[in-house]
Amino acid sequence: MDPEKIFGPRLTVEQVEEGNDLAPRFDAHGLIPAVTTDFESGELLMHGFMNKEALALTIETGEAHYFSRSRQAIWHKGATSGLVQKIRELRIDDDQDCVWLRVDVIGGASCHVGYRSCFYRKVPSGPGLDADAPLELEFTETEKVFDPEVVYPGVENPTKL
Amino acid sequence: MDPEKIFGPRLTVEQVEEGNDLAPRFDAHGLIPAVTTDFESGELLMHGFMNKEALALTIETGEAHYFSRSRQAIWHKGATSGLVQKIRELRIDDDQDCVWLRVDVIGGASCHVGYRSCFYRKVPSGPGLDADAPLELEFTETEKVFDPEVVYPGVENPTKL
Repeated sequence: MDPEKIFGPRLTVEQVEEGNDLAPRFDAHGLIPAVTTDFESGELLMHGFMNKEALALTIETGEAHYFSRSRQAIWHKGATSGLVQKIRELRIDDDQDCVWLRVDVIGGASCHVGYRSCFYRKVPSGPGLDADAPLELEFTETEKVFDPEVVYPGVENPTKL
Repeated sequence: MDPEKIFGPRLTVEQVEEGNDLAPRFDAHGLIPAVTTDFESGELLMHGFMNKEALALTIETGEAHYFSRSRQAIWHKGATSGLVQKIRELRIDDDQDCVWLRVDVIGGASCHVGYRSCFYRKVPSGPGLDADAPLELEFTETEKVFDPEVVYPGVENPTKL
């Protein structure tokens, strides 16, 4: 599918917010944030970015495609790991500058570290918390779904310091 | 709380991904994306950004604070509308460059247009879809929770074209 055809122009605030035309806004780097949750559990699995082509490919194939900022390339999620994300529902927000992917994950994991979700640690918060040192995170998943050294042999870790 | 004290240094990939220290990564603009879901339903309510101060305020108060890019200011969600987001759980992702807020929303709505969620429209996707014109969105919410002209009188609409 041709992004130039399936994405409409952004003409007015009312058209963007209350209309029926898909008219996404890409930022100065040509990217739109993408939030991916598990269709059944609602769990947040990952947060990534898409460029025009990745969004068009996601729409066309029904499988999540992102744009990898570290590799500066289209990234068909699961192409290396087999952990493909099948779109059950795709949504867009009010001002059309963010998309929401509700997916089924083939193989059950979405995180390159090996956990089901990328969000496997809790941050303490709320009144009464007293801290003058780095806050201590609490793990919410203890078992990895896969071993990243087996699934991504020789692939550089994408995490940047 | 002092962001310089509660956020730790990022020393190694292993420490960031597998450790217990909160060591968030802010981008070149000093921002980290924040994904906000309804604690009970799992519905994605909104996607925003925080700077160091907004994240520290969220942790300290237990209420969502964002950084408004259009206004270039800290934004205590609900300060104008009363639709405060109370943090039930806060999480951070593998490389600590995104946070997940699981919240209860006082008043039941999070979207400035008046809907419960910002993500009130569905994008068609998947094989078999044939399009050479802007794709047609489908509304998933039909009733607004509030009238934005009453809740935000005289406030400029934040949507940018």
